[in-house]
Amino acid sequence: MKAHQIVLSSRPKGHPTLDNFGRSDVELPSLGEGEVLVKSLFLSVDPYMRGRMNDAKSYVPPFAIDAPLAGGGVGEVIESNTPGFAVGDLVTGMLAWRDYNVAEAKHLLKIPTSSIPASAYLGILGMPGMTAYVGLFDLGKPKKGETVFVSGAGGAVGSAVGQMAKIAGAKVIGSAGGSKKCARLIEMGFDVAIDYKEAPIMNQLMEAATDGVDVYFDNVGGDHLVAALEATNDFARLVLCGAISQYNNETYQPGPGNLFRAIQRRLTITGFIVSDHGSRRDEFLKDVSSWISDGKLTYDETFVDGLENAPEAFMGLFSGLNTGKMVVRL
Amino acid sequence: MKAHQIVLSSRPKGHPTLDNFGRSDVELPSLGEGEVLVKSLFLSVDPYMRGRMNDAKSYVPPFAIDAPLAGGGVGEVIESNTPGFAVGDLVTGMLAWRDYNVAEAKHLLKIPTSSIPASAYLGILGMPGMTAYVGLFDLGKPKKGETVFVSGAGGAVGSAVGQMAKIAGAKVIGSAGGSKKCARLIEMGFDVAIDYKEAPIMNQLMEAATDGVDVYFDNVGGDHLVAALEATNDFARLVLCGAISQYNNETYQPGPGNLFRAIQRRLTITGFIVSDHGSRRDEFLKDVSSWISDGKLTYDETFVDGLENAPEAFMGLFSGLNTGKMVVRL
Repeated sequence: MKAHQIVLSSRPKGHPTLDNFGRSDVELPSLGEGEVLVKSLFLSVDPYMRGRMNDAKSYVPPFAIDAPLAGGGVGEVIESNTPGFAVGDLVTGMLAWRDYNVAEAKHLLKIPTSSIPASAYLGILGMPGMTAYVGLFDLGKPKKGETVFVSGAGGAVGSAVGQMAKIAGAKVIGSAGGSKKCARLIEMGFDVAIDYKEAPIMNQLMEAATDGVDVYFDNVGGDHLVAALEATNDFARLVLCGAISQYNNETYQPGPGNLFRAIQRRLTITGFIVSDHGSRRDEFLKDVSSWISDGKLTYDETFVDGLENAPEAFMGLFSGLNTGKMVVRL
Repeated sequence: MKAHQIVLSSRPKGHPTLDNFGRSDVELPSLGEGEVLVKSLFLSVDPYMRGRMNDAKSYVPPFAIDAPLAGGGVGEVIESNTPGFAVGDLVTGMLAWRDYNVAEAKHLLKIPTSSIPASAYLGILGMPGMTAYVGLFDLGKPKKGETVFVSGAGGAVGSAVGQMAKIAGAKVIGSAGGSKKCARLIEMGFDVAIDYKEAPIMNQLMEAATDGVDVYFDNVGGDHLVAALEATNDFARLVLCGAISQYNNETYQPGPGNLFRAIQRRLTITGFIVSDHGSRRDEFLKDVSSWISDGKLTYDETFVDGLENAPEAFMGLFSGLNTGKMVVRL
């Protein structure tokens, strides 16, 4: 059968544009041993994919030109050549940006039947949620009464980090772009929400962090990282998860000029990638599922409908179109 | 009795000059309970003191104008009001830049009689040696066969770091200024010595670190930190100890533009100050003393004679006049 797909037609210079994407049809192979045919229901767009569009060595290989983009996805098994995977099962895993994929079943996770919608497995119960969980608890290690600052708090990772930090008993400051997102953070239980579009993040953070910052969870980089370094207490932990403000830079951008704070204040700065922490998946799913059920943790999703609109959904991540997880719904 | 002293007469702007220092005499108080009168034999000048010359909050309070500078010192007890401290005992501790000091005995360490000269308690057996020891072993954690890069390797801390890393079984790359210092590093057992004055450190390090860098011990900052970030392997540890290239900057200096490597390569970057690690002193003294006795660890000292020349000794740290520990000998 034929599948429709979205491909990378050229590598973006700076901000991606529609010209960088193309569409094509592809003939899917017939199912081999251990494979399943999956109908895409939801496809994920995430900031880290921007790095894969460059022709540069990184922790994941670059997307190839004229090949489909790929990322987390949720789909329904419509044909199976694998024991344990039945037609109608919902699954999640890496899927190409296609309406149908032939996938190896061993790389897919079956989604259990529950009251939580399957799309959550791309967000709060998927890679972004687990990123928040291991980054905050295993690396940031907030203690009760400490102050946690998270940037990009309107996004899928940041909104989870802030709520998890509240569960850990911390005071939580989040930054996001716009009053609407900030109001939502307060609804979610954040103590302070900073609208970075209103005034320099440095000034606002120094004012908000009356007791200093003990844990900084960085999704943004740039001026947010400089401000966080400036606001740290001695022995603070800075967890570097992403730097969305920097992903579309074409030219050299200087780093934080106040990195010397790391010595003065005995800071630990740790970069991490969630895929190194697979051993924490079971605990993550158990904890987060129960927090959702108990009403301690909530999440937002922004849906963009139609495979053909996946490029616009992706580009919207960089202009902050999403509140919470950005999901392409087919 | 009167003591001669060197005071801070004005705060340096950028590089310190002789104008920033002055001399005066001071009447010492008579000895109180628990105090001793110490004749200075050796006074230490260390790069971190530059920070104390600024009127800025940091981990140690600033020097006061017209008050004597102070730092590590070694002296001889010539009068004692404290049981356990006898005339003739050699002691080390914080001393003002004076020929004589009245000091509280509880803040002094008695130097044991051994074949190691007392001045070593300002270097390899003192603060710089312990800085190397805890920074490398407790934070850098080199494993056998890994590559350790240390900048400022011609200095008291760096030369110790490199030799300790060899003891740990690592391949060791050091950077220093000038062919003479580099030759000395090779004598000390470094595998590669980079003369940063010859060519950009980035190019030289990328060439030397054929297996990448697993541990970077930073004494220099600036272009050295950028180069080290670029050369790291996944899961490398960067230990930030000092940034001598930056201490005399008057204006904003951008930080490393490639800090994003920390995420891509899952780096841990830790700033530290040796005074937080006092609990390691006994092990440090035991290990380092035995390494010196066994001929596994050597050290250099550069002596500048005369209290009145302490300012020039201090300023010489920033032009690299010292090989190993810079010591003022009275």
